[in-house]
Amino acid sequence: MDTTRILLDHGAGGRASHNLVNDLFLKHFAPDGGQGIEDCAVLDLGPGRIAFSTDTFVVTPIFFPGGDIGDLAVNGTVNDLAMRGARPRFLSVGFILEEGLPLEDLERVVVSMARAARNAGVRIAAGDTKVVPHGAADRLFINTAGIGSIPDGLDISATKARPGDQVLISGTMADHGLAVLCQREGLTLSNAILSDTAPLGGLVQTMIEAGGPAIHVLRDPTRGGVGTSLNEIALASGVGVVLDETRLPVDESVQGACDLLGLEPLYVANEGKLLAFVAPDAAQDVLRAMHGHPLGRRADFIGRVEASRPGQVWMETAVGGARIVDMLTGEQLPRIC
Amino acid sequence: MDTTRILLDHGAGGRASHNLVNDLFLKHFAPDGGQGIEDCAVLDLGPGRIAFSTDTFVVTPIFFPGGDIGDLAVNGTVNDLAMRGARPRFLSVGFILEEGLPLEDLERVVVSMARAARNAGVRIAAGDTKVVPHGAADRLFINTAGIGSIPDGLDISATKARPGDQVLISGTMADHGLAVLCQREGLTLSNAILSDTAPLGGLVQTMIEAGGPAIHVLRDPTRGGVGTSLNEIALASGVGVVLDETRLPVDESVQGACDLLGLEPLYVANEGKLLAFVAPDAAQDVLRAMHGHPLGRRADFIGRVEASRPGQVWMETAVGGARIVDMLTGEQLPRIC
Repeated sequence: MDTTRILLDHGAGGRASHNLVNDLFLKHFAPDGGQGIEDCAVLDLGPGRIAFSTDTFVVTPIFFPGGDIGDLAVNGTVNDLAMRGARPRFLSVGFILEEGLPLEDLERVVVSMARAARNAGVRIAAGDTKVVPHGAADRLFINTAGIGSIPDGLDISATKARPGDQVLISGTMADHGLAVLCQREGLTLSNAILSDTAPLGGLVQTMIEAGGPAIHVLRDPTRGGVGTSLNEIALASGVGVVLDETRLPVDESVQGACDLLGLEPLYVANEGKLLAFVAPDAAQDVLRAMHGHPLGRRADFIGRVEASRPGQVWMETAVGGARIVDMLTGEQLPRIC
Repeated sequence: MDTTRILLDHGAGGRASHNLVNDLFLKHFAPDGGQGIEDCAVLDLGPGRIAFSTDTFVVTPIFFPGGDIGDLAVNGTVNDLAMRGARPRFLSVGFILEEGLPLEDLERVVVSMARAARNAGVRIAAGDTKVVPHGAADRLFINTAGIGSIPDGLDISATKARPGDQVLISGTMADHGLAVLCQREGLTLSNAILSDTAPLGGLVQTMIEAGGPAIHVLRDPTRGGVGTSLNEIALASGVGVVLDETRLPVDESVQGACDLLGLEPLYVANEGKLLAFVAPDAAQDVLRAMHGHPLGRRADFIGRVEASRPGQVWMETAVGGARIVDMLTGEQLPRIC
């Protein structure tokens, strides 16, 4: 029996499953004992509204410059919670493992998840593992679901954009998508491109302290990129969004790789950036607060909200023209997250 | 372009993803509009403790007698919540779809999930969909995570079994595992075996009304079956469990199929049954209450808790002997849930 790889037995719910949970998952996710990772956790969140979100991760390769499927899975759900103004608190983790996966790879992912959870200030409170026969899945898929606490008085939602709002972005576009793609395709660039995977809860708290209810919308532009996220917000709020092409931040090496590959950074996934729609009075204060946070140093205004052309996103181009920015159509990059 | 099947495009986060969410998921999961299914839902649960759980479903085939992967995924997480005494309230759903999956099959599963959620009294509040290329997954995997509200004064946990407790089971063993296996292997039996997939929240409420804090442990014996679940409880509570072989309920057709296939019903998965450990004074009242509920008609005592031999499960056999009942070792039935 090969003791260095995942066997079907690890997913059968018997002795081997029990040992995998105790020797690998609990060791890293609940090192202090705690409640352990039960079928079902009991939590006390205190009064108030909660945020609840889920995301599944199927990225390939599972290890890439700047991150791996593990920290991506933690940060992805943490960020979904933060985009409602919530303080991320608890995560669940569901693994689908392919028979034959090296245990070493699984442990590396689990260690990465435990570290990401500590960084984000969340506790992994519940888990589940399934094993499928070789060929029925590609190595390792991870689902995370999360719960956060929403402070009183906040109502941040994709439906709350209002004419006059300033549109901000917290940093450069397209880093994550390009990092994964370059790794997958074996592209070697002079400057390695790193995934931007990061937990945005701290940046959001900083922004809320500066702007409070003036922050109308937050969104992390993952799959589909900034272009698709802005379209969804324009539709959900019934407003028009006008972008200034000259202000869209893209790293030089990322832009170079995009040109090489024929990709449009506006539609490439980010995993540690956010878009914010902020009432004009508070926008400068929020931007200043973002600049003071490590994940917001390159934050900038990129556009504004108008009442005209509801549901549409327009780009004012560098040469003085204007064009419609549609949602992503067609598959640009499969299995990017 | 084949419009009858899932394309990579449906998972890209752009226009096709947006349409799939609106035209399929929201249509069935949020027919009245409501909050829709957002990246992240905002919920108000009121004060008190919550239960939080996750489970992933990789069963094959995805349709089987008595159920499908959809109602299984809803009931599975609902039941994990109910086993802590919680009232199940909200679910998240994460799909992994294989490129080429017929949309008709996906819709059938989604309709089944929506119906199961209504039956269980839960709302599907958040969702996510990923598509992987043909061959990178087997058709369709589903993760559900769930949140429930725990009434004050209850502390039901696998650690709470006490010497003297009576052990009850709510009905027959091994139906789900055998139903899936017979379908998968194309076995035709004179009496079709149906999966027992069902939401146990209502039965648990009935039991709590009758027994309150006298109910120490609840557990749905899924993967690994009754034998493994009892071992986990014995270990977690540091007690011994003694079973009476003559009282273990198995349907005649299920027992016949198990004999044919060389399976031990004690280790085969159930998806609509529960084990309960109840203080002796209240055990008869709880059993009577179970008999009055449609999912507890065949409930019975099957054993008792002793202080001796902590961490072990013993069986008193029909012929007057006794043997150790271990956890399941080895893979009995892969991809059963």
